[in-house]
Amino acid sequence: MNEKTTAELEQLRGLIDGVDQELLRLLRKRLDLVARVGAVKHAAGLPIYAPQREAAMLAKRREEAGAMGVAPQLIEDILRRLMRESYLNEKDVGFKQIKPDLGQVVIVGGEGQLGRLFGQMLSLSGYRVETLDKDDWQRAPDLFAGAGLVLVTVPISVTCELIREKLTHLPEDCILADLTSIKEAPMQAMLAAHEGPVVGLHPMFGPDVGSLAKQVVVVCHGRQRQAYLWLLQQIEIWGARVVEAEPKRHDDAMQLVQAMRHFSTFVYGLNLYKEAADIDSLLQFSSPIYRLELAMVGRLFAQSPELYADIIFAQQGSEQVICDYLDNYREALELLKTGNREEFIAQFRRVALWFGDFAPQFQQESRVMLQSVNDMKCS
Amino acid sequence: MNEKTTAELEQLRGLIDGVDQELLRLLRKRLDLVARVGAVKHAAGLPIYAPQREAAMLAKRREEAGAMGVAPQLIEDILRRLMRESYLNEKDVGFKQIKPDLGQVVIVGGEGQLGRLFGQMLSLSGYRVETLDKDDWQRAPDLFAGAGLVLVTVPISVTCELIREKLTHLPEDCILADLTSIKEAPMQAMLAAHEGPVVGLHPMFGPDVGSLAKQVVVVCHGRQRQAYLWLLQQIEIWGARVVEAEPKRHDDAMQLVQAMRHFSTFVYGLNLYKEAADIDSLLQFSSPIYRLELAMVGRLFAQSPELYADIIFAQQGSEQVICDYLDNYREALELLKTGNREEFIAQFRRVALWFGDFAPQFQQESRVMLQSVNDMKCS
Repeated sequence: MNEKTTAELEQLRGLIDGVDQELLRLLRKRLDLVARVGAVKHAAGLPIYAPQREAAMLAKRREEAGAMGVAPQLIEDILRRLMRESYLNEKDVGFKQIKPDLGQVVIVGGEGQLGRLFGQMLSLSGYRVETLDKDDWQRAPDLFAGAGLVLVTVPISVTCELIREKLTHLPEDCILADLTSIKEAPMQAMLAAHEGPVVGLHPMFGPDVGSLAKQVVVVCHGRQRQAYLWLLQQIEIWGARVVEAEPKRHDDAMQLVQAMRHFSTFVYGLNLYKEAADIDSLLQFSSPIYRLELAMVGRLFAQSPELYADIIFAQQGSEQVICDYLDNYREALELLKTGNREEFIAQFRRVALWFGDFAPQFQQESRVMLQSVNDMKCS
Repeated sequence: MNEKTTAELEQLRGLIDGVDQELLRLLRKRLDLVARVGAVKHAAGLPIYAPQREAAMLAKRREEAGAMGVAPQLIEDILRRLMRESYLNEKDVGFKQIKPDLGQVVIVGGEGQLGRLFGQMLSLSGYRVETLDKDDWQRAPDLFAGAGLVLVTVPISVTCELIREKLTHLPEDCILADLTSIKEAPMQAMLAAHEGPVVGLHPMFGPDVGSLAKQVVVVCHGRQRQAYLWLLQQIEIWGARVVEAEPKRHDDAMQLVQAMRHFSTFVYGLNLYKEAADIDSLLQFSSPIYRLELAMVGRLFAQSPELYADIIFAQQGSEQVICDYLDNYREALELLKTGNREEFIAQFRRVALWFGDFAPQFQQESRVMLQSVNDMKCS
């Protein structure tokens, strides 16, 4: 590199440094302003996530960006990232309490990750939260006596048994709720064990989310809806969307979404291990899409084996779905073995037709995701 | 909402609007400055992507952010997104031409997506690019006569045949290269057909990338390395990383990375179709991780069936890898059928151990990706 080039680059980089300083100051200022919005909303008991307001604001910014020759998608991506940061900070100020006269909340299995997350959210909203775990059941009668809400979040394999055996003497107006990822069996158990209000919840996210903003919580109505409506409102205040579902329909969808998917991801990891694949060289050759897929597989194995065993082994009917997949795999393999390329293409087309407009939509979505994966690459 | 709340929110939103205007102006300014850096680099023939400089700049910004109470990850994410935008804009100014005295470039299969992308990059770097497709082979002798580089990018199923039959009379100093996703067979065919310089390339990305910055191109050396070294430098100027590999080792890794993965994604889509899954309700219940996985599956079916048939059917040895997966799946299913939860957990632990430090690293990476997916959600 000659001296002139070096000097020019140095000078430009100095100017960029200056812009970045200004950028940091602006980010700080915007985060502070949004925190003040949060405080006003908090006082008024408004949800932190307002989809329509957000969409309108983004549309306006995109237009302004276009007029200035800045790519609309750039400002949208940056603002979305900033909004995420604001949602995260929201936690620090706490949330409006919808039901101030509720007795204490008892989280059964409160030391688990999801139990801790809900305990934290409820505490931040002003509720008195007590946790109950395997080791301190002697405290149960005292805690239950003053409870307005008992929230069950123990491993799937013991949920129903625990409800049937231990939760039969709650105060009549106490709400009994659970966070299990299957809903039919726990709902039946709760309705049988307790005569008061019952509601089933399934948070559709892992405990490692930083904020509940935009996350989904599935709700299955049990009994005395009026008594627990505040809880659903409270969850919405945290930013989540509440989606109602029939337990059976929820469980059917979950067999495809959870049991089957986790199972085949498990087998995929097992397969890499048995093929003695060299992860380093796989990564070296990896395009973003494969790096992403490998990360999704590796992610599973960073988590608790018991949790996944529970999810896969506990779902009635999941075995059938998993068997069906095996049959389809075998049939497709037959096409490969016999070199039947034409039938492979014909089947591909049928599936593409079935995906319909979702296929190009997913392609567009995944393109955006792959670009973020690529942004993250360091070398 | 009472009047006071409304007024307070209005006022704060007005202030946020003002900050966003400043933000847009700043983005515009930064993009312009980086474009000037690009122009200086272009004139000096320096690559647009400088990993070390980028890492040093980000480290500095993170530190400055921390001192101002802004989350370091926030500024890093925003700057990475901005850098992507700059790489995209880079294309507009063109690239330094490394080999000005090259004859014309002939892209065989230049109407395909990847052919078009490479044609565009070569044109932007000042080369004269001609394309040759099925329909205009009568032009071949004329085009080849003055060619300095012939780049083959036709469907895998016809690549070797085309090389053997049609590329036997290139000028002796012409470089023969290909972009096929397998390397052993095409390399052999090229080395047999042509006595001059030969090099095999495999771009590890889809044709829908906006920029080659940070992407990987695998290179397999054929013959007369000195003659085509400029081409590798040219690819680096475009921002990509060139990774050397032995054809056989490359193909082995690709069986796991491509053939097997595409095949099981195909079966997964086929399975959803046969189970008559309701995509709408799957999405409604979906946590970000499943939405991402569904998008990765749907993405496949938005693309050409022939392309995937080629990739899956053309790889020798991929059948074995695909069979192995079936065996592993069947064995794991047996655990489920017999309720052998303990052995499932034992196997899970073995795989987790094998993943080693990659598992937590992948978990961290996927968390970041899932957060971007969640940022994108609109309702």
